[in-house]
Amino acid sequence: MTAIVNVFLKEGVLDPQGKAAHHALDSLGFEGVSDVRIGKQIVIKLDTDDKSKAEAEVKEMCETLLANTVIEDYTIEIV
Amino acid sequence: MTAIVNVFLKEGVLDPQGKAAHHALDSLGFEGVSDVRIGKQIVIKLDTDDKSKAEAEVKEMCETLLANTVIEDYTIEIV
Repeated sequence: MTAIVNVFLKEGVLDPQGKAAHHALDSLGFEGVSDVRIGKQIVIKLDTDDKSKAEAEVKEMCETLLANTVIEDYTIEIV
Repeated sequence: MTAIVNVFLKEGVLDPQGKAAHHALDSLGFEGVSDVRIGKQIVIKLDTDDKSKAEAEVKEMCETLLANTVIEDYTIEIV
């Protein structure tokens, strides 16, 4: 199974990478952009075929390693 | 409208960030992980309501700034 994990800075946490991209897009003449936020997408290939087990395991991976839950939120999708 | 852009290293391009995460997961005792790849997810808020115009504009943003098309692929989703 494949788990797709999206890790994003929480609302209200400054996103300098997104701000830099927004500014660069403005400089390049792209108008009508009101906000840019940049997060991580982590694709994990798992050996298991048990969806609920996979989801629980990936949640633990997020809590212990993949996301900094003080400033980041994450979503998990199993496909 | 909101555009969700996923930027990933192409197949065959070494992903050291993914390799490091994979190794760390192994060290933490997570077994059954066969591969980890880490990409960027960029969320762009656009003022326009025209979906096809938004898609064309975001494609141009990817080609000029957001993705390095020599080593990276990207997908665009307009929601």
